[in-house]
Amino acid sequence: MKENNSTRCNVLFLGNVVTMDADETVIKDGAVAVCGDMIAAVGPAAQISRQYSPDETITLPKAVIMPGLVNVHTHAAMACMRGLADDLPLMTWLQEHIFPVEGRLKGGMVYDASLLSMVEMIKSGTTSFCDMYLFADDVARAADRSGMRSWIGEVLYDFPSPNYGEPAAGLVYVEDLAQRYRNHPLIHITMDPHAVYTCSPDLLIALKEKAVAHDCPFVIHLSENDDEVRTVIKRYGKTPVYHLEDLGLLDGRVIADHCVMLTEEEIALFAARGVKVAHCPESNMKLASGVAPIPEMIAAGVTVGLGTDGSASNNNVDMFAEMDMAAKLHKVHRLDSTVMTAGQALHLATMGGAAVLGADREIGSLEPGKKADIIVLDFDKPHLTPMYNVASHLVYAAKGSDVVHSMINGKIVMRNRYLTELDETEIMEKVNVMTRTLKEGS
Amino acid sequence: MKENNSTRCNVLFLGNVVTMDADETVIKDGAVAVCGDMIAAVGPAAQISRQYSPDETITLPKAVIMPGLVNVHTHAAMACMRGLADDLPLMTWLQEHIFPVEGRLKGGMVYDASLLSMVEMIKSGTTSFCDMYLFADDVARAADRSGMRSWIGEVLYDFPSPNYGEPAAGLVYVEDLAQRYRNHPLIHITMDPHAVYTCSPDLLIALKEKAVAHDCPFVIHLSENDDEVRTVIKRYGKTPVYHLEDLGLLDGRVIADHCVMLTEEEIALFAARGVKVAHCPESNMKLASGVAPIPEMIAAGVTVGLGTDGSASNNNVDMFAEMDMAAKLHKVHRLDSTVMTAGQALHLATMGGAAVLGADREIGSLEPGKKADIIVLDFDKPHLTPMYNVASHLVYAAKGSDVVHSMINGKIVMRNRYLTELDETEIMEKVNVMTRTLKEGS
Repeated sequence: MKENNSTRCNVLFLGNVVTMDADETVIKDGAVAVCGDMIAAVGPAAQISRQYSPDETITLPKAVIMPGLVNVHTHAAMACMRGLADDLPLMTWLQEHIFPVEGRLKGGMVYDASLLSMVEMIKSGTTSFCDMYLFADDVARAADRSGMRSWIGEVLYDFPSPNYGEPAAGLVYVEDLAQRYRNHPLIHITMDPHAVYTCSPDLLIALKEKAVAHDCPFVIHLSENDDEVRTVIKRYGKTPVYHLEDLGLLDGRVIADHCVMLTEEEIALFAARGVKVAHCPESNMKLASGVAPIPEMIAAGVTVGLGTDGSASNNNVDMFAEMDMAAKLHKVHRLDSTVMTAGQALHLATMGGAAVLGADREIGSLEPGKKADIIVLDFDKPHLTPMYNVASHLVYAAKGSDVVHSMINGKIVMRNRYLTELDETEIMEKVNVMTRTLKEGS
Repeated sequence: MKENNSTRCNVLFLGNVVTMDADETVIKDGAVAVCGDMIAAVGPAAQISRQYSPDETITLPKAVIMPGLVNVHTHAAMACMRGLADDLPLMTWLQEHIFPVEGRLKGGMVYDASLLSMVEMIKSGTTSFCDMYLFADDVARAADRSGMRSWIGEVLYDFPSPNYGEPAAGLVYVEDLAQRYRNHPLIHITMDPHAVYTCSPDLLIALKEKAVAHDCPFVIHLSENDDEVRTVIKRYGKTPVYHLEDLGLLDGRVIADHCVMLTEEEIALFAARGVKVAHCPESNMKLASGVAPIPEMIAAGVTVGLGTDGSASNNNVDMFAEMDMAAKLHKVHRLDSTVMTAGQALHLATMGGAAVLGADREIGSLEPGKKADIIVLDFDKPHLTPMYNVASHLVYAAKGSDVVHSMINGKIVMRNRYLTELDETEIMEKVNVMTRTLKEGS
């Protein structure tokens, strides 16, 4: 029964609520009330239903309600290169297949291909992502169109870009981008040097200054594989991590992608400097880069999130598959089944990711006052039956395709697996057409 | 246009056909004609459509038609323990969680839980499986009900079983089982000693004699982890593999599950003896057993198939996830992205599995004269767009949920994701009810 003074709200979600709050509270028969773009209340359904009068109630017979997943490292537009070339040595893959295709990209293609990735992300439960790519303005346009929450950066390096031309022009480009998106409610611009081996110290420093000026993350591929580390040691006499440290660039603004090759000493340094890490197990596996020492990073207090990397090296952007892979990979690598639990993998994909992006007060959990980024899974499925432990099911048994509803910033972006903001058929068709041009180079 | 003398057939599948024949031929705009329980013809759609007049044509705008997947190692009934206990050391998991629950199992429960796993298998593209468990008669009843093709064995060991009691009674039980299913078109009985460390030499020999007498596989967990190998060396002064060799038990009838700890010498021995291997990467990862030397086995000419193991250690029976994991695991383990290709992973899950079961002349590929075990995937999906290489998509991007139709032995068992033979709602409900009894031990 409603209380007389019940509060009006937009949407009431009913089901088992996986809050991902500090105690990782799970509320059986729970509810989440959303007012505008915010979560107003989280608690037992009986209580919340009395307190709120919703315009709409969203539920399912076996609904699991949880925070939208946070993908901390991707190159969305690489959806157009999904499966273009696989099972090749890294340098053959990059130089003979990926780079030639990237040289033929145009902004409009990046827009369409990024939208395709966003469709896939929404349909597999991701509500926020951090993207590094060419034509970032087009990526941002696509993100704006999709309704997703995003952190977007234009990748810079010492050589000319198919987008902005010379590196100096790149600095102008990112400055303009940061200015224009300064007040966007969902899109945050980041400063993205490609990597230590492709960016001069001057370029790294210039981008770090911009990150400070715009109070935004500084995102860089770092210590991804043995080749990179050896190249940098040869050039600078130190590892990629110590190269950045000696340039004075390591601090809480840095999001370091991959970090497969981190030493114990470097992990301690990351913890001391507050450097954040984007862990991409599937890409690291597929490219045979190695296994990042994530359990050690977590033990040392480093903030870690989970990322898919681009679809050319994964070949999907499904964070449910990524959680499963993360938990299993570390167990077998360390021959210890306790070294990464389902709960830890779930944390990496939610609150961990939010903290990597410096947004843990806005997203990553279902708590009053946070932004309403919420997904609903249908657990009334053979592969999710029976149900003993919801975290275990979310990591080891659920699939992205079990997500049926998605809300971002208080707006429903998927209902019953139909996207409300995007026309997925049209987007697929555009990418299919573009693909012919891309591959043939015509 | 039909030829005047076109042949009547039951079903014509139209789409891109992944045959998995010896040349791994893929036929764009292809067709598969099914007459009765057999594949009558495979070829270009234009040609096959002229030659055959089907009762029914099955297609989709972007259909991929391929052989049903072959899961060479599972414990179907363990679906009822999915997520019961995870992220624990192996012995804690087994002794404190799995064994106590198994002690409370009854035949009817195994029947229902096995059906649940079969529902999940069909819905994720598996058409054949090899099962080892308690109450095998009930597993076989469930398999018969489901319409799946199966190899089923009752697990035997030196201690009393919740099913048949003392080991001697177990030998009577499996003899009876083998007799009764001798002429079943889809169900094959196997002889299944649990493992070297749980079965006396006498029991191993007795079961091998029965396997010879019934001309069926001899299925055993073998060299799954370091603990097992050390236990056996301590007891017999030799590894599990050499223990079997010295008992004269290694030959082409043996299906060895897991084989994580195989040495180079043991791999050569397997190749010489024709021993088959069931590779279960997800279970080996989740239980932190290690990484089986599969690339070495393949190089040595050992026949290898892919298995999920039971849902308590995976926690699903989805062979698409298993293929993805297999390809990625070996790449990262060997730091070589070429060591297990998408094509090889696909082979393991189809022809490799068929060969492990000694059924490579009946199933595993789409070729005239083979049994009609066929699945159809819908590739008109964002996560399968664009499409450069079908094998790459099947392994790295497709999900079990992309399978829309399934035919086993010429009979449609799933149409548009609806099961034609089984009531999945009723089966889920029965397992949910059973689960309460199981967990509480009441």
